[in-house]
Amino acid sequence: LKIAVDAMGGDHAPRAVVEGMALAISDGGVPRENLLLVGQAAALAPLIDEVGLEGVAVEDASQSIGMDESPASAIRGKRDSSIVRGMRTVAEGRAQAFISAGNTGAVVAASALVLGRLAGVSRPGIAVPVPTHRGPCVVIDVGANIYCKPDHMLQYAVMASEYCKASFGRADPVVGLLNIGEEEGKGNPLIQQVHALLQGSGVTYRGFIEGQDIMSGVVDVVVCEGFVGNVILKVAEGFSESFLHDIFRKVAETTNGSPDVKAYMGSLKQRFDYAATGGAPLLGVEGSIIICHGRSHGGAIANAIQVATNFTRSRVNERIVDEVAKVSMLHRVADFFHIDQN
Amino acid sequence: LKIAVDAMGGDHAPRAVVEGMALAISDGGVPRENLLLVGQAAALAPLIDEVGLEGVAVEDASQSIGMDESPASAIRGKRDSSIVRGMRTVAEGRAQAFISAGNTGAVVAASALVLGRLAGVSRPGIAVPVPTHRGPCVVIDVGANIYCKPDHMLQYAVMASEYCKASFGRADPVVGLLNIGEEEGKGNPLIQQVHALLQGSGVTYRGFIEGQDIMSGVVDVVVCEGFVGNVILKVAEGFSESFLHDIFRKVAETTNGSPDVKAYMGSLKQRFDYAATGGAPLLGVEGSIIICHGRSHGGAIANAIQVATNFTRSRVNERIVDEVAKVSMLHRVADFFHIDQN
Repeated sequence: LKIAVDAMGGDHAPRAVVEGMALAISDGGVPRENLLLVGQAAALAPLIDEVGLEGVAVEDASQSIGMDESPASAIRGKRDSSIVRGMRTVAEGRAQAFISAGNTGAVVAASALVLGRLAGVSRPGIAVPVPTHRGPCVVIDVGANIYCKPDHMLQYAVMASEYCKASFGRADPVVGLLNIGEEEGKGNPLIQQVHALLQGSGVTYRGFIEGQDIMSGVVDVVVCEGFVGNVILKVAEGFSESFLHDIFRKVAETTNGSPDVKAYMGSLKQRFDYAATGGAPLLGVEGSIIICHGRSHGGAIANAIQVATNFTRSRVNERIVDEVAKVSMLHRVADFFHIDQN
Repeated sequence: LKIAVDAMGGDHAPRAVVEGMALAISDGGVPRENLLLVGQAAALAPLIDEVGLEGVAVEDASQSIGMDESPASAIRGKRDSSIVRGMRTVAEGRAQAFISAGNTGAVVAASALVLGRLAGVSRPGIAVPVPTHRGPCVVIDVGANIYCKPDHMLQYAVMASEYCKASFGRADPVVGLLNIGEEEGKGNPLIQQVHALLQGSGVTYRGFIEGQDIMSGVVDVVVCEGFVGNVILKVAEGFSESFLHDIFRKVAETTNGSPDVKAYMGSLKQRFDYAATGGAPLLGVEGSIIICHGRSHGGAIANAIQVATNFTRSRVNERIVDEVAKVSMLHRVADFFHIDQN
């Protein structure tokens, strides 16, 4: 199992990436021969020495894509960027997974161009496990696809259900469709169509859920449009930042550093630090592509290496292909009878 | 100034509403002759006695609309509901404002039917002041309109700017358009069109903002689609609930009820308790319509009475009509020259 990591992606690259790799080796027990650093070899050499990563293979990539570059043109123009080269190590079978904290749009675009989609999948989607007190709730899509059609969202439900089973051991993940109310008839036409598709789909569908249900843990998978998912994630992030930091400071002051409160606060902070969690799979592409937050530090990269390992070992992509095929078959049968009746 | 309040709306009605009115009188200094309770007079009588609201006028309404009823059919079918009758007190000039914690969709539908829109306004929008450390940030729309078109969203920017000036004393409110990135070219076609309209509109437009910016206070007004705004609000609510309650309990335990921490936590809780804040105006209708959270307790109702008073006294609706007219004029001029050039 070989995992390629984008050395040039993210606000704290390349240092955070190299440090994260070292952490995965020292604390995570990942064999160093399983790792492949993708970036400007000459520039990385001193950092590799400093962090003690000697012996980790480097895939030389002369270019890097900035966080604010337009994804499509960056991918076309920078064939020797760390993102495109990283994808190619997977396409060529020299690695099974690729991790990047870089330009998310560029990662999504490069995966489509270089790796292609899994058989039967219409649009890949980014699946983010959001922490709840009942374990992760997977929100899909959070921005890979901002032109979501009903069948894309049906497939998101199927793919995220398989991911939930494979990565979080849920036997029968429950799917909710994000809407502005739980009653039948609520929502826009897109939501209504997805609702109809999900009801006959074979996934365990609970129906509409609302924003507050994401954190409450009533469902294992939340399906939403990429635009909506992206905004939600950032609202939650903004909330935790502007707010928790306030509380933590105040509580630390007033409790004079009580170790009990400190430990509890630390665990909460970690649970809700979206930048630290690290590792959202891009579901529906040929390979294991793991997207990290742009602000990832070493810990998030190390975590993403673990996520990539589990994702690849679980062979979830094979399950996704099977289940997407079943759903399309159901779809075609339903269509057939529908046409027949008219 | 007369303020009508829906006695039958919300999860804790009618008790919470009647108690909220009493609170507005006792703590808020609102004269009782300024208040009008709308609901089933016979059923309300014992409660009015109990709470000590004798002398407050009651507008008898034999029906009430449930939280889960379909708005359009409820409004058509229940002409004697507290929501429809409340709107009529405003339409007939017997009250200037109407407050409801009931079925939001029904309030929006009834306002369109009974009151009508302000001159020049295409679609009313619900404007929610979200607490930030720099004061309220007004998010519009949060669900009055789920088929948002570019010119609706342009008008939301204009209306919410006027509301910000009139209610929060901002001299020059800064407007942000919610998107999935700050760079030009990001977002879907709707967002791109609104972006173009806002740039030439005369409102103080900062450009795209992202989800995390709502809480950070970098803008005074956030414009978004009703679907997106509704989801955001509920995510923030869910976050604060599932999470803050946890922290508060733990901190209270560990600090053995330190009064300093307790007071701080209490202030935070109040600041982020969306049910307690109470009072989001429906901008763009002929009158002052204030929508409360369905879970409102007495405090939220009392607060909404204050909001309704300020909203009506500020005569913001006159400013909205003027500014919407200016923007439409600009619009027509731009269109004219555009056509001329081709």
